[in-house]
Amino acid sequence: MTTDALHELAEALNDGALTTDDDRLRAATADRSGKVADGLPLAVVDAQSVADVQAVLRIAQAHSIPVVTRGAGTGLAGGAIAGGGEISLSVAAMRRILEVNADDQLAVVEPGIINADLNTALEEHGMWWAPDPASRAISSVGGNIATNAGGLLCAKYGVTREAVLGLDVVVPGGELLRLGRRTVKGVTGYDLTSLMIGSEGTLGVVVGATLKLRPLVPGTPWTIGAQFTDERTAAEACAAITAARIRPAIMELVGGVGLSVLAQYTGADLEGAFVLVQADDHDAEQTANAAAEMLRSFGGVVEQTDDLERAAHLAEIRRQMMPAMESVGTVLVEDVAVPRSRMADMFSICNEIGARHGVTIANVAHAGDGNLHPSFVFPEAEPTEAVWAAAEEVFAQCIALGGTLTGEHGVGVLKARWLRQELGDAQYALQQRIKSAFDPQGIMNPGKMFG
Amino acid sequence: MTTDALHELAEALNDGALTTDDDRLRAATADRSGKVADGLPLAVVDAQSVADVQAVLRIAQAHSIPVVTRGAGTGLAGGAIAGGGEISLSVAAMRRILEVNADDQLAVVEPGIINADLNTALEEHGMWWAPDPASRAISSVGGNIATNAGGLLCAKYGVTREAVLGLDVVVPGGELLRLGRRTVKGVTGYDLTSLMIGSEGTLGVVVGATLKLRPLVPGTPWTIGAQFTDERTAAEACAAITAARIRPAIMELVGGVGLSVLAQYTGADLEGAFVLVQADDHDAEQTANAAAEMLRSFGGVVEQTDDLERAAHLAEIRRQMMPAMESVGTVLVEDVAVPRSRMADMFSICNEIGARHGVTIANVAHAGDGNLHPSFVFPEAEPTEAVWAAAEEVFAQCIALGGTLTGEHGVGVLKARWLRQELGDAQYALQQRIKSAFDPQGIMNPGKMFG
Repeated sequence: MTTDALHELAEALNDGALTTDDDRLRAATADRSGKVADGLPLAVVDAQSVADVQAVLRIAQAHSIPVVTRGAGTGLAGGAIAGGGEISLSVAAMRRILEVNADDQLAVVEPGIINADLNTALEEHGMWWAPDPASRAISSVGGNIATNAGGLLCAKYGVTREAVLGLDVVVPGGELLRLGRRTVKGVTGYDLTSLMIGSEGTLGVVVGATLKLRPLVPGTPWTIGAQFTDERTAAEACAAITAARIRPAIMELVGGVGLSVLAQYTGADLEGAFVLVQADDHDAEQTANAAAEMLRSFGGVVEQTDDLERAAHLAEIRRQMMPAMESVGTVLVEDVAVPRSRMADMFSICNEIGARHGVTIANVAHAGDGNLHPSFVFPEAEPTEAVWAAAEEVFAQCIALGGTLTGEHGVGVLKARWLRQELGDAQYALQQRIKSAFDPQGIMNPGKMFG
Repeated sequence: MTTDALHELAEALNDGALTTDDDRLRAATADRSGKVADGLPLAVVDAQSVADVQAVLRIAQAHSIPVVTRGAGTGLAGGAIAGGGEISLSVAAMRRILEVNADDQLAVVEPGIINADLNTALEEHGMWWAPDPASRAISSVGGNIATNAGGLLCAKYGVTREAVLGLDVVVPGGELLRLGRRTVKGVTGYDLTSLMIGSEGTLGVVVGATLKLRPLVPGTPWTIGAQFTDERTAAEACAAITAARIRPAIMELVGGVGLSVLAQYTGADLEGAFVLVQADDHDAEQTANAAAEMLRSFGGVVEQTDDLERAAHLAEIRRQMMPAMESVGTVLVEDVAVPRSRMADMFSICNEIGARHGVTIANVAHAGDGNLHPSFVFPEAEPTEAVWAAAEEVFAQCIALGGTLTGEHGVGVLKARWLRQELGDAQYALQQRIKSAFDPQGIMNPGKMFG
């Protein structure tokens, strides 16, 4: 039956779109989460068009073959990894910009386009698309949509959900749905566009997106680097900036464990905690002054600049965290979010849990929105029992603080076993019924999100 | 069986919560849409608590009795009107503010609280909740959520969906679900919070809302009134302001037919078209200057002021539209939205359709976001065949321009017959399956939205 299906697929697609090359199959089993699927997928399909995606979902449905949609493969939760008996459906080649409409401040794109490439193209129209995950240079717009990606700027400029007007989606069986609209407002029927955003490939395949753009922000940004002797005070200073209604575009906090890893990597003299603030728009200087004053009042040693080179140097401290950690061991990047006022508590909790389990937990936070990335660093190739035990405690404590398991990376396979705990039994069952409304046979990305 | 159900309900609720008084039953059959339900509901329940709502949905489910949730009753699409065989469930008495957390910039409220009352209470915390429908003085937060209400400010500050973090919802059977979260970011499971927003009482009952607040906007606003000789030019001037990336907080456009109705009502010398612009925040004056220059370049006669009394006078021209129209006849307020660049076309189309059908269509637009309110004014008590024929053409033309049937009022009963046309058959069927996932027996607000 599977052979029949692959034969039908090969017939329906252009030559070369379907491959069973071992290298491609193997690549499809992994992403950047460190998770690898069991077994090799049946085939990889490189969709070139909406019709290709429709053919895959028509034939897969007819033969009850699971389909795992894949973009750039940069996911951090294993949401797009494909294993035995599954088809890996890549939309990476569907990367055209179909329309840029500066008057209506929207763009229509295919899902495979890389976030940074889109923004480069939008620049000449004086526009940008706000979602800016740290992976923007390598992650696709479709992947950003699948995980409701956030990033550094989203306390001020919103997450992916606030930046999408409509989606074209192919559902199991191959039907093409046009969800949402091109207008700013609209309340015709249920908001299936929002439902798709963050659904991690479990409902259908996004084949087109109408994106809400913003005019480029004018003026020169001001950047602040602030050194603190301890991370709790630094976290409190950041929360105080938000509470005082100062609105920087970026506010990042690197904790003590992270700084010591970084000091080792760069040779720089770093300890305590480091806060990076960037203010933009007409009131950049005024905002930066207010933020700097607040950071100083909490004991921070502040450098403030509108020199772009110096600013890049300060931002580099934050950016080097990932390579620094990877130089020491394997890294499991976690992604919890708490109400902003509980951020200092969450830092302390992670330190305590790390110390008790003998696990290195380096913490970096998007301090403007309470999203922390506790990063577990360990010498083994895969997370050990101690790492998972520590992670489980981090999740439980985060939920107890009124937080959530994942701010922007998604559930994937990595957190599927904790989903029910956060949602509660009744909502978990309801979410599964919604899944069935789209995908009655359960062929879309099985095992992800719900486990 | 119905008698049994009412008896059970009376037992489960506090004395006086269930009423069958004729006046109350009759009031529950109508809202501000002009639509009246057939027959009288079985009873009105004034819920005082989450437990009351749970009791109603438990007993209604057991007896398969339809439930129509009602807030302040100010809906413009007939979404909350209850008729024969139905229970009208009022949450108007559930109006407490449970928490205001300025540090985390959120509030937790019950659904019955009036939008303006909430904002008055938030003011002392230096915060506000952005959704500002024209009905804000009389409409409830729960109703704003049920219709994804917009308003005058939403081109700059977003619609209701962007201002809600989480919802507590009672579903058929009486189970209480906690959807969403208290954090800025989060992607744990499908976004059921967004799905509830704009669902018009067809999925469950919102009994609590965690709202995302904003700090009060600093500074004195600048206001502009601009007179144009024709509305097409005025609409083009407004679109040019958006395209030039000037970001006023408010931009309203009153068309020619509306102005002549207004001139008759007030005795003022008004014709052509009127544009109201308001700019706020630190850059209010700069933004107002840029907007005024653009309006002048399109031939507008501009008055610009930061005097609050004079500003109120200019705003009054827009505000008096509704009483002015009501002084002439019955008013059916429509609510289409088009991409901003097509606004001028939509004005022309409405005029042409009105002239051809001999129907007065006064147009007022939220010009910052392309949301028009073509208001049909007629001497009869109910819309005539000619009015519906004209309305149907307006809807069809709006969809042809890439627009949507309803920007912010909802589908209710008024537009239910056009929903399938906008969504397409496949999406329409999918939306019904999603409805069934929440409400398998179809007891939540039947006949609304889907017709």
